[in-house]
Amino acid sequence: MSDFTIGVDFGTQSVRAIVVRCSDGTTISESTFAYPHGVLDRSLPDGTPLPGADWALADPNDYMTGLIHVVHNAVAKSGLAPEQIGAIAIAATACTLLPVNKDLVPLCCLDEYRSRPQAWCKLWKHHRAQPYATQLTETALLMKQDFLANYGGKISSEWAVPKVMEVFDQDREVYNASDRFMQFSDWLTGWMVGNPDVQNGSIAAYKALWSATDGYPCDKYLAAVAPQVPEIVHDKLRGTMYLAGDCVGTLTKEAAHKLGLSTSSRVGMAHTDAHASAYGSGIADEGDYVFIIGTSSCGHLITRRQEKVSGVTGALPDGLLRGYTCYSAGQACVGDMLEWFIKNSVPSAVKEAAASSGLSLHAYLEREASKQKPGECGLVTLDWFNGNRSTLVNAALSGITVGLTMETTPIDIYRSMLEAIAFGHREIVDNFTSSNLSIKRIVICGGIAHKNNLLLQIMSDVLGRPLEVSAEPQATALGAAICAATALGADNEGYESLPEAIHQMKAGCLKTIQPNLENTKAYERIYNHYHQLYSIFGRQYSGIMEDLRVK
Amino acid sequence: MSDFTIGVDFGTQSVRAIVVRCSDGTTISESTFAYPHGVLDRSLPDGTPLPGADWALADPNDYMTGLIHVVHNAVAKSGLAPEQIGAIAIAATACTLLPVNKDLVPLCCLDEYRSRPQAWCKLWKHHRAQPYATQLTETALLMKQDFLANYGGKISSEWAVPKVMEVFDQDREVYNASDRFMQFSDWLTGWMVGNPDVQNGSIAAYKALWSATDGYPCDKYLAAVAPQVPEIVHDKLRGTMYLAGDCVGTLTKEAAHKLGLSTSSRVGMAHTDAHASAYGSGIADEGDYVFIIGTSSCGHLITRRQEKVSGVTGALPDGLLRGYTCYSAGQACVGDMLEWFIKNSVPSAVKEAAASSGLSLHAYLEREASKQKPGECGLVTLDWFNGNRSTLVNAALSGITVGLTMETTPIDIYRSMLEAIAFGHREIVDNFTSSNLSIKRIVICGGIAHKNNLLLQIMSDVLGRPLEVSAEPQATALGAAICAATALGADNEGYESLPEAIHQMKAGCLKTIQPNLENTKAYERIYNHYHQLYSIFGRQYSGIMEDLRVK
Repeated sequence: MSDFTIGVDFGTQSVRAIVVRCSDGTTISESTFAYPHGVLDRSLPDGTPLPGADWALADPNDYMTGLIHVVHNAVAKSGLAPEQIGAIAIAATACTLLPVNKDLVPLCCLDEYRSRPQAWCKLWKHHRAQPYATQLTETALLMKQDFLANYGGKISSEWAVPKVMEVFDQDREVYNASDRFMQFSDWLTGWMVGNPDVQNGSIAAYKALWSATDGYPCDKYLAAVAPQVPEIVHDKLRGTMYLAGDCVGTLTKEAAHKLGLSTSSRVGMAHTDAHASAYGSGIADEGDYVFIIGTSSCGHLITRRQEKVSGVTGALPDGLLRGYTCYSAGQACVGDMLEWFIKNSVPSAVKEAAASSGLSLHAYLEREASKQKPGECGLVTLDWFNGNRSTLVNAALSGITVGLTMETTPIDIYRSMLEAIAFGHREIVDNFTSSNLSIKRIVICGGIAHKNNLLLQIMSDVLGRPLEVSAEPQATALGAAICAATALGADNEGYESLPEAIHQMKAGCLKTIQPNLENTKAYERIYNHYHQLYSIFGRQYSGIMEDLRVK
Repeated sequence: MSDFTIGVDFGTQSVRAIVVRCSDGTTISESTFAYPHGVLDRSLPDGTPLPGADWALADPNDYMTGLIHVVHNAVAKSGLAPEQIGAIAIAATACTLLPVNKDLVPLCCLDEYRSRPQAWCKLWKHHRAQPYATQLTETALLMKQDFLANYGGKISSEWAVPKVMEVFDQDREVYNASDRFMQFSDWLTGWMVGNPDVQNGSIAAYKALWSATDGYPCDKYLAAVAPQVPEIVHDKLRGTMYLAGDCVGTLTKEAAHKLGLSTSSRVGMAHTDAHASAYGSGIADEGDYVFIIGTSSCGHLITRRQEKVSGVTGALPDGLLRGYTCYSAGQACVGDMLEWFIKNSVPSAVKEAAASSGLSLHAYLEREASKQKPGECGLVTLDWFNGNRSTLVNAALSGITVGLTMETTPIDIYRSMLEAIAFGHREIVDNFTSSNLSIKRIVICGGIAHKNNLLLQIMSDVLGRPLEVSAEPQATALGAAICAATALGADNEGYESLPEAIHQMKAGCLKTIQPNLENTKAYERIYNHYHQLYSIFGRQYSGIMEDLRVK
């Protein structure tokens, strides 16, 4: 009997593993581990300073150490024998990319490249590749490339090709020394099965301009962007493509030993953390829409319809489930904005009031803000502190607060930030529905969804629709475990297909938030202001923010 | 020998008196007094709550008690005999208006009206009369009233007629019980000479639609605004008009006794605090421009040219000095905005850093912000927390901060507020010069001018012009003493005319701030953004802020 799987969820700051029973998705045990080096945005671990802004690097050793730690721990806590773990799969942030040599060793782990910023793992939110992304988009527009439609008309600086172009331009030696550039989830998956040639085709489609039907964009276009780009995609980003739920092999002796598992354990191809969350939250049928809220947010709608939709981050056949097109869109700054506020804008009087109420600052702000009616704060905020991902796809945009008066309080500002998150989400939902894509149900998951009830209520009120809140606080790790169970297969205590595994193993619905329709009506007025500001600063006068970003 | 005068400066929170030698303007002694009740914006002194927002009331007893206290104290400190004080005059905030009975007793001092908000003294910044101001402006536009040009095309909610209309509408009994509504500086001046019929004609021109040449607007117009308006201007706002420097009488026995002065002391008609500051700072010749910065700001340009200028708060013949037209304009929120920031937006980390540097929070913020280059903060703020007085004349506008990112710090926000103050001032200066009014020299005075060097430097850089900083920190009180010396007259140790007194008694120039022309160039780019935002939110899309203000 090996009817348990392990799902591992690599976040930006920490990693979590859970041991799950395949038959019903019950979590048996879990373990977490915070990365010793966190996000490297000012200097490398050896003290080398990172010049300029917008760096976001990670130490791949943190990932490897973390994987070994949490798998060991979770299995130990479960009381199960290693042989009872039938399969393992990883979900992770993307596009988080690192250069490795032929032996799968990250270049930054080699002494000679340790002080070279470009040799390190670039996190999804590393934002220094914008010029290359702009070059890719502008050339595609000029050459009328159809593939651009899959990406809402714009290529993001967060994706693989701009990130590798940055290495080529900034540190040719690192570029030349690399055998390839891998998503770190592919790198760890490849390490587990002893095969560097393992790649998630859906991530490649979302983050590296690849397509299951057409492959990469034509070389004529790629070379027109820059002479090295054909080599980047065909060589530096090469790999055999798998999809989530596919079995890519079994654990090598070394990996089984280090992880404390059996060599008979299968390794499943998992997916990005966002997609794994969607599996864990039960996305499986036509019109299902899962929205994940954390530091940023990300929504996925699966449908058999195919429409041209602008302003999405992806519109990809088989992107999330075979047979469905997955339309994705998200906000670049959600929890991040609230953290910014806590760090930079909360006066000591509010801090003291929270302390004397015995509440955390977040909980206090939520309680005080919940006393206000829609629009009572008199403010409208644009939630673009990290730029706008959807529906404007412009990383150079920035945040704004309109309506400040001498009576404005910190609670007002906090409340308007929550409303901004809800309005930004409505822009995404309206963008889908006005493009003839119908949303049948909305499932919400992610850390903030379980912490901030006021935010959920405002989101529901602003949409005028019920929101199902996924019961599983660790939907992402559960999604990875579901992928592992699919890799295990029906003949082996697992499942035949991903949707089948999802239906059996998904987290239940914790609660359904019903919109307060009086609030829905009241928000119409404030949302109209948001929408107008969205258009003023996102389109008509976007040059103001773009110029301010550059400084 | 009675060659000394007293100048009294009534601010929003406190009153100051100085004893001054007429021959050279030297300050001999001074005394200050903080009003016990401060600004009443939530409740009356007896606990009666003030419903809704935008109240700003004052207790006239605070003014009377304060006057007696500071005059007594200043004279005692000077070591002079009462007979040596030849004259006294008052400068004060305007339009700060109160209803009185026939005996000059404020209605709010009578038991029966003590709990009635409309019976109290309305401070200049009481902002609940906007609907009446709008009515006055709209009817004037409709009926093509020429007088509107004297006010930049818009009537402010801060002025006398809208404030009395509010009383008529909100509390008819108070309205009926009033003998008249007086500026509190006229009320105190009238009390000193025992004559209720004393009124500053220049304040009436600035704040009550009166004109020395044409009187009040025609009754046809007034009645079209509302049937009671002719009575309001002709009866409730009646009074014999004087100008600054005129002698209105000598002290009554009662007043002399209470103030500890002689009944031979003359009482001079003074002016608003802003105009008195201008006298104290030496405004006396063609093209002189004095800019006063405090909680709000106010600039006065005197010239013999007569031009139609929109967006000013006044363009009045003899408004400041006989023979000159005085063009006035100002910002509704300067020091107020910085205070708002300190109270609502400074996190404890910054507070602690200031404390451990041994600096006040203001001084610490100024020091840290001075390390930045122009535009380095990446933000543009609109300084409209109290609405925009000039050049848009719209109290319903509000503040905005554009360019917020995850990297934005509290210092960035503070710096961008200073830049906003400078940009807002440039709008005013550019508005004058583009209307063919030339500014020969710029003199800066007011509390903040002596506290915040960085602000002055940024203002000079943004204009690309030198700024003379008035040496007298109490220019306003000095200006009142100058008015008193003119009332005293040339045959009595005083002066023949106001310009003559100003030239002899004005404060010297503390320092001249020279623009850093490299910064001037760098600010051009940021100012262009400010100017564009000014137009977007002040004109094209002003409805957004107007609607948010209403809530």
